Amino acid sequence: MQKSKVGIIMGSDSDLPVMKEATQVLEGLGIQCETRIISAHRTPEAMVSYAQQAKERGIEIIIAGAGGAAHLPGMVASMTTLPVIGVPVKSNALSGWDSLLSIVQMPAGIPVATVAINGAKNAGLLAAQILGIKDPVVSQKLEDFRKQQTEQVLHKAETLEELGIDGFLEGR
Amino acid sequence: MQKSKVGIIMGSDSDLPVMKEATQVLEGLGIQCETRIISAHRTPEAMVSYAQQAKERGIEIIIAGAGGAAHLPGMVASMTTLPVIGVPVKSNALSGWDSLLSIVQMPAGIPVATVAINGAKNAGLLAAQILGIKDPVVSQKLEDFRKQQTEQVLHKAETLEELGIDGFLEGR
Amino acid sequence: MQKSKVGIIMGSDSDLPVMKEATQVLEGLGIQCETRIISAHRTPEAMVSYAQQAKERGIEIIIAGAGGAAHLPGMVASMTTLPVIGVPVKSNALSGWDSLLSIVQMPAGIPVATVAINGAKNAGLLAAQILGIKDPVVSQKLEDFRKQQTEQVLHKAETLEELGIDGFLEGR
Amino acid sequence: MQKSKVGIIMGSDSDLPVMKEATQVLEGLGIQCETRIISAHRTPEAMVSYAQQAKERGIEIIIAGAGGAAHLPGMVASMTTLPVIGVPVKSNALSGWDSLLSIVQMPAGIPVATVAINGAKNAGLLAAQILGIKDPVVSQKLEDFRKQQTEQVLHKAETLEELGIDGFLEGR
Amino acid sequence: MQKSKVGIIMGSDSDLPVMKEATQVLEGLGIQCETRIISAHRTPEAMVSYAQQAKERGIEIIIAGAGGAAHLPGMVASMTTLPVIGVPVKSNALSGWDSLLSIVQMPAGIPVATVAINGAKNAGLLAAQILGIKDPVVSQKLEDFRKQQTEQVLHKAETLEELGIDGFLEGR
Amino acid sequence: MQKSKVGIIMGSDSDLPVMKEATQVLEGLGIQCETRIISAHRTPEAMVSYAQQAKERGIEIIIAGAGGAAHLPGMVASMTTLPVIGVPVKSNALSGWDSLLSIVQMPAGIPVATVAINGAKNAGLLAAQILGIKDPVVSQKLEDFRKQQTEQVLHKAETLEELGIDGFLEGR
Amino acid sequence: MQKSKVGIIMGSDSDLPVMKEATQVLEGLGIQCETRIISAHRTPEAMVSYAQQAKERGIEIIIAGAGGAAHLPGMVASMTTLPVIGVPVKSNALSGWDSLLSIVQMPAGIPVATVAINGAKNAGLLAAQILGIKDPVVSQKLEDFRKQQTEQVLHKAETLEELGIDGFLEGR
Amino acid sequence: MQKSKVGIIMGSDSDLPVMKEATQVLEGLGIQCETRIISAHRTPEAMVSYAQQAKERGIEIIIAGAGGAAHLPGMVASMTTLPVIGVPVKSNALSGWDSLLSIVQMPAGIPVATVAINGAKNAGLLAAQILGIKDPVVSQKLEDFRKQQTEQVLHKAETLEELGIDGFLEGR
Repeated sequence: MQKSKVGIIMGSDSDLPVMKEATQVLEGLGIQCETRIISAHRTPEAMVSYAQQAKERGIEIIIAGAGGAAHLPGMVASMTTLPVIGVPVKSNALSGWDSLLSIVQMPAGIPVATVAINGAKNAGLLAAQILGIKDPVVSQKLEDFRKQQTEQVLHKAETLEELGIDGFLEGR
Repeated sequence: MQKSKVGIIMGSDSDLPVMKEATQVLEGLGIQCETRIISAHRTPEAMVSYAQQAKERGIEIIIAGAGGAAHLPGMVASMTTLPVIGVPVKSNALSGWDSLLSIVQMPAGIPVATVAINGAKNAGLLAAQILGIKDPVVSQKLEDFRKQQTEQVLHKAETLEELGIDGFLEGR
Repeated sequence: MQKSKVGIIMGSDSDLPVMKEATQVLEGLGIQCETRIISAHRTPEAMVSYAQQAKERGIEIIIAGAGGAAHLPGMVASMTTLPVIGVPVKSNALSGWDSLLSIVQMPAGIPVATVAINGAKNAGLLAAQILGIKDPVVSQKLEDFRKQQTEQVLHKAETLEELGIDGFLEGR
Repeated sequence: MQKSKVGIIMGSDSDLPVMKEATQVLEGLGIQCETRIISAHRTPEAMVSYAQQAKERGIEIIIAGAGGAAHLPGMVASMTTLPVIGVPVKSNALSGWDSLLSIVQMPAGIPVATVAINGAKNAGLLAAQILGIKDPVVSQKLEDFRKQQTEQVLHKAETLEELGIDGFLEGR
Repeated sequence: MQKSKVGIIMGSDSDLPVMKEATQVLEGLGIQCETRIISAHRTPEAMVSYAQQAKERGIEIIIAGAGGAAHLPGMVASMTTLPVIGVPVKSNALSGWDSLLSIVQMPAGIPVATVAINGAKNAGLLAAQILGIKDPVVSQKLEDFRKQQTEQVLHKAETLEELGIDGFLEGR
Repeated sequence: MQKSKVGIIMGSDSDLPVMKEATQVLEGLGIQCETRIISAHRTPEAMVSYAQQAKERGIEIIIAGAGGAAHLPGMVASMTTLPVIGVPVKSNALSGWDSLLSIVQMPAGIPVATVAINGAKNAGLLAAQILGIKDPVVSQKLEDFRKQQTEQVLHKAETLEELGIDGFLEGR
Repeated sequence: MQKSKVGIIMGSDSDLPVMKEATQVLEGLGIQCETRIISAHRTPEAMVSYAQQAKERGIEIIIAGAGGAAHLPGMVASMTTLPVIGVPVKSNALSGWDSLLSIVQMPAGIPVATVAINGAKNAGLLAAQILGIKDPVVSQKLEDFRKQQTEQVLHKAETLEELGIDGFLEGR
Repeated sequence: MQKSKVGIIMGSDSDLPVMKEATQVLEGLGIQCETRIISAHRTPEAMVSYAQQAKERGIEIIIAGAGGAAHLPGMVASMTTLPVIGVPVKSNALSGWDSLLSIVQMPAGIPVATVAINGAKNAGLLAAQILGIKDPVVSQKLEDFRKQQTEQVLHKAETLEELGIDGFLEGR
């Protein structure tokens, strides 16, 4: 079996419905990845091990999702020089304002590449774009993905012109 | 020398002008404390050691100050069962909104006792109040501190009544 | 009957579904506590009595939950030197932003140990951690609680690795 | 000496430069008022006494200013049926967001008439408007004040038309 | 028929389910009031007439509720010296942040007595408290209301002590 | 067929239920418009073409709706001197705060005429008001629309006075 | 003298340093405009007159700037069918959050074309773009303005490439 | 001369004092980069060219800084599959809240790797970490940088222990 290049980790299994979009997009692009539950606060030792061993295990990029006082992405980033992508998961009371700020506002010295609240799909795409700078196959697949994406919007645009607003909305 | 009962740590020396108020209030109450620079992101290993050894070193309460994506209080809290008091330090761009949310919004299982933005003095007082539940000397000193504090306000109130607003403001 | 060591109070019975998590976690750790409805605004005299008598009644820590312009934790804190833990209860219009700020932003001199919005479970744990600094039995129970908590996350992590994402999500 | 009809209180003498605008506007309208420092958190007993005795002392309206976790207006309101006007004082870290929310978001049952952040002048005017519903002299003075205020703006408007923008700005 | 002393106005009939609490509380206290739909933006002329004629029609206090860019309370306040109470109605996208700020942040010269988001009940009570400074009957009714309110909370507090948390929550 | 004078574009078909209100209000005023799906991010070339050709195609005003990091209105505005009206569409996690700020906070040099979150109806009306400065027929229709709008509110106001609050609410 | 086509109004002369940028940009494009101080709250009658007479006086667009609870743009918009452009002026305590929300969040039926906080220059440009749809001379001047603006940025870009970062920053 | 691997672009020369930290950190790590002023709104065509040609010109990562309605990072990202790092530049009125949200909240399909407000140094480090996954020299330099950074903090920590708080603060 091929070794995983992207490690997708999250603070709680309640983040899984959001984070699986990262897994799906990477698998769709043929990029091997692993998906793990690792809590900065409830399994700090597992987090330290994961961060410290990721590079030697062949992981090239880490995607970390967390909500509330979301420390997982930043803490993992502090223990590896691999690029770490942070996904702020929408939180209960504050809708992700807390998740976003505690992921993106990292101090100088330790960056986390932050995507939108619940933006796990984009985290997967960003990981692929990073891998694409050394792997022309991935790069090509991303070009294709973009083209397809553009075509889907153009197709919807055409359908709207054909059917009109009401027809389009009924047809969705 | 007496062993420190309160460990005051902060993510950066730029937090020191704020955090020293905690040291001052504790020393004023006769409570031994240590003040250390420990960065969750730039010295994660030192942080892990500090958190894991604090209890056996005789520390009873940890006060941790940090700004921005402030992970220090929560990460230390995840590695000890000592009470951890978090001080959100006012940040540059977002005035401490980021510091506050990334300290206070901890997930269930790992509490951080959060005080106001730049509230290091209150962090020191809270540590003393916690120690006071087992040490009647500290408890008595806190009662005295409160009385003194009340008297200071009452004294200002009287001065205002005597001097009137303009007189009072000139006299400040 | 053993005397209560922790007083859990809240501004309204509508806070009870949130605040009972504090009671549950304390009872689970074998710590005697009392749960009371006391409103800063609608029963100010009861609040004053409660705060002033708590210490002599044997209460060692007060947990106070309130929403909106949440004055209960701070006002109780102003009338006792016992540690007061504040729980900002999620509010209707502003999702707890108001509750959080009116609890955590206390002026210098009177601290409130604030936990997350709706963080009553953590309030209970924090109370236990505070009691743990003088009671080795409580301290040991907290160590056990933490271990169990870690194991639960590790178990979920293993289950995810065994079943894969879809299998895991179906099995929840 | 005439008895004060309006009690102007504030949590700290640092609020005085803001709150004195309330005193000034009331004195300008010939309304007797008293200005006092009373802290909800540092002199809770003085606050209770003040609130409970205000009515029998002849006070008809209370203006209370406070910053941060601003509990003074709401707590005073809970202990009197006199109208209480709250002035959120601009706070250090959060610019008054905390002061505003902890004053205005009072629970059903205990209203506080909240004005703008640092809006002490309007608090004074509001107190006068309230007195004006029973005192035609005050009411008339308010009508005059409004007219004068309108004329001042109209005068500035004319000056701008005469001098043009640059002339006007130089002349300020 | 007695003349109305309090005019309750709102920008849209969609505010009525919120604003009727003001009507109810005033009627419950025996205070005559009128409830009207008047839109600052869609019926500006009706608003001008209402504001300018309120005083001579015998109205003593105006309660104005509005949501979003909520201009009704401030505009009415600019055209009368009667006290105007503003009720920020919870808005669709921004949950009332917009309503609150556009009501409370009035410029110096024209106050609006702002209550909490959706705080129509408190607007009614505040109006009564204002009337109470000249009408001892109203004042007495408010004292009774407060006592009753206190007793309700105390009764709930007792019920909780009798039934325990689970029993209480089932009984609600 | 008459040429469209207003181009209504949106970043995604998920914006259509909001944006169609702009179409409806324009059609109701007899103004020809076209409704298109054009994504700044997924079809940037289509966006560039649309913006650059709009003027020569006879479009006089562009209405652009988008949510989240909403770049469509500003980018289109940067490539045409036609007036561009931006509609911030309510977003999932942040309720439109992100959409609003990324549309309205344009740098000096390139304006976007921003309306309220989900304010597509007002975008349509604003477009009509702009066309009205050169087309007296449109201008007259807008006067009629306003009158009708005023009458609707006045009618509701009368109904409320007739039926009372409960009758009115039942009748809705 | 040519009649003014654009009326620039503001709530206070303190807004003039911001708002004069609108005047300047319009004059720079050869568009006649008038600049007036008109306060929604302090001169409501002047505001009503201005709004109601603007159209017949030959005004085609109104630019209205205001800060805090900024009602001027929306209220003027409610009394004319001319396009109204709102400029939220940066406020003291809340930095313009209040100004922005009370201008942009207008209810359906009465649009205000809102620009950025302190965005008076863009308000002037937007007014010109609106006039440009019927006046080819204005339209051409705007095309020229845009070209010039683009060239200025390109020129800076070239200077940066020539001088390098340090040289460029020194030369500013 | 070596070809640039990282393109650093910004919307305005006013962003240069912030963005030059990215240049500095990359040059310090021996990574060739180019620094350009390109405005999404004022030079949209230059932006389109830059984004479309970056890849074939040998650029591997783009760092884009912008403030306010910050569209540059997202628009460039929409026209290339290279990884794009966004730097929200602190804005005048809203302190970077607008910049942050308009960069990070990208829709699914087009990711932008967002760093903290004014976080240009971290943007440079992140670019290096990305290049490090294929270039062991860069990766090693980053390991060294991290070690040095850790040592600097440890050194400060030691100095604090030696000198005490006052000595340390004087010595800074």
